[in-house]
Amino acid sequence: MKTALTKKIGFSNGEFTELSRIAISVDNIAVNRGYGVFDFFGVVNKKPFHVDRHLDRFFNSLSLLRLKISFNREEVKRLIDSVIQQNDEVFYLKLFAIPLNLEVTQNLTSAFYILPVDSPPFNSVVYESGGNLITREYMRFLPEAKSTNYLPLIYWYPEISEDNAIDVLFYNNNTIHETSRGNIFLVKNNKIKTPANNILKGITRSVAIDIIKEKRLHFAEESITLEELYGADEIFLTSTTKKILPIVKIDHHLIGTGKVGETTKELMHLFQKLQEGWG
Amino acid sequence: MKTALTKKIGFSNGEFTELSRIAISVDNIAVNRGYGVFDFFGVVNKKPFHVDRHLDRFFNSLSLLRLKISFNREEVKRLIDSVIQQNDEVFYLKLFAIPLNLEVTQNLTSAFYILPVDSPPFNSVVYESGGNLITREYMRFLPEAKSTNYLPLIYWYPEISEDNAIDVLFYNNNTIHETSRGNIFLVKNNKIKTPANNILKGITRSVAIDIIKEKRLHFAEESITLEELYGADEIFLTSTTKKILPIVKIDHHLIGTGKVGETTKELMHLFQKLQEGWG
Repeated sequence: MKTALTKKIGFSNGEFTELSRIAISVDNIAVNRGYGVFDFFGVVNKKPFHVDRHLDRFFNSLSLLRLKISFNREEVKRLIDSVIQQNDEVFYLKLFAIPLNLEVTQNLTSAFYILPVDSPPFNSVVYESGGNLITREYMRFLPEAKSTNYLPLIYWYPEISEDNAIDVLFYNNNTIHETSRGNIFLVKNNKIKTPANNILKGITRSVAIDIIKEKRLHFAEESITLEELYGADEIFLTSTTKKILPIVKIDHHLIGTGKVGETTKELMHLFQKLQEGWG
Repeated sequence: MKTALTKKIGFSNGEFTELSRIAISVDNIAVNRGYGVFDFFGVVNKKPFHVDRHLDRFFNSLSLLRLKISFNREEVKRLIDSVIQQNDEVFYLKLFAIPLNLEVTQNLTSAFYILPVDSPPFNSVVYESGGNLITREYMRFLPEAKSTNYLPLIYWYPEISEDNAIDVLFYNNNTIHETSRGNIFLVKNNKIKTPANNILKGITRSVAIDIIKEKRLHFAEESITLEELYGADEIFLTSTTKKILPIVKIDHHLIGTGKVGETTKELMHLFQKLQEGWG
């Protein structure tokens, strides 16, 4: 194990530098107007996990928010590899584009950062016993862009935390969408479903769908009501940090038997194998 | 006139320093999660305009977002006066509280800033000919808090700009609420109305209401539909930078005669007199 004192090296819009030295002015659109785009992925066996899918999404988010960075896709890819090589141990990397303009203009030139994130693996007990979620009515603005707009997550944190929940699941007009940082799947009568619209399409979600299709399980992307969710046999979350994570309780409704289901266990296992063989 | 090269002095969480030197780490909740609170007021004749009302709102916003700063209300007031004295010319001051935590916790200790903003007066032509607005369906999350959550404003900026509009007016279920940075009033058959709910209650809004009540004009705070708005005799906006600003077109609907109305003119004049006598 490396100690927490190991210096982390990031990329700061043109130069490699110690993470702790990367600072921005307090006075710009990124800070004052909560405007920025990021992406976030695991580094597995020294290789970025599904970097092409993350770059597709990152450049799409940039385009949706009209942000321009000074590096093209191939340059970003090389910079990512370079940051990985310059750090002894990296769990995750964050790509970050934030406009340092003082004033809003049509063209939002952004500083671009690659920041190593030294987060420990997610608590393993929850993979055996299953976690819980709370739900709240909310619709993200421009959900298909991975923006820095997380006010509701931070606002609802005490309630998430009080219920010892993994995350908050957003619904609107009785239809569920996504959690604040992940996607949701349900299993009912051996059929797997996940919402298709008004969500940020997670890369772990896409990998889970690949596995589901490869195993020829029944699967559909379609809208899901809250009642369907409460009545599911199994539920699981997908996210970069949480991978495939079983959910056994939502708003104090037990899901299925209240234990981690067999389909979820199989998918967790296959995802784990895929990551072990990565790179 | 001072040149743009005049050094501006701000307050940075415990010390007075040059504005351009105030920097924060790129990696914290304020930047990554778009989380922060501010307030913004004019400095008129070297005195902060209605500072008590702005402080009431600022501390209420802090409380709603669970942010804690290390300075109490009286200290903030003295610091505001000190920043005004240390700058040759200040048009506006921004109070800013942003959590520099890396991780979300129950208690979000925030850095506190007072930043002079050297913005020129709003374009005077629009006070004579009236401005226009565009409308979009959107409901701010936690509208009664003045948070840094302005993603939709920046996102819709090209459309606002293309229409040469002053701002974007948000509505939901056919009911209007507020613009991205101001409040809206209408005049119909000599009665003045402004929305009461799901808005940030502006300080300029409250001063306009004071003037309206003092003049014993017919007035109500109540909900307003889009159709009522289009059919109004007069419309005006209130905001710190825009003061009382006439609106003569919304979404290509001409309002009333398409000229600045008499009630609006009178209120503009009274507001102007109130500011001239300030301090």
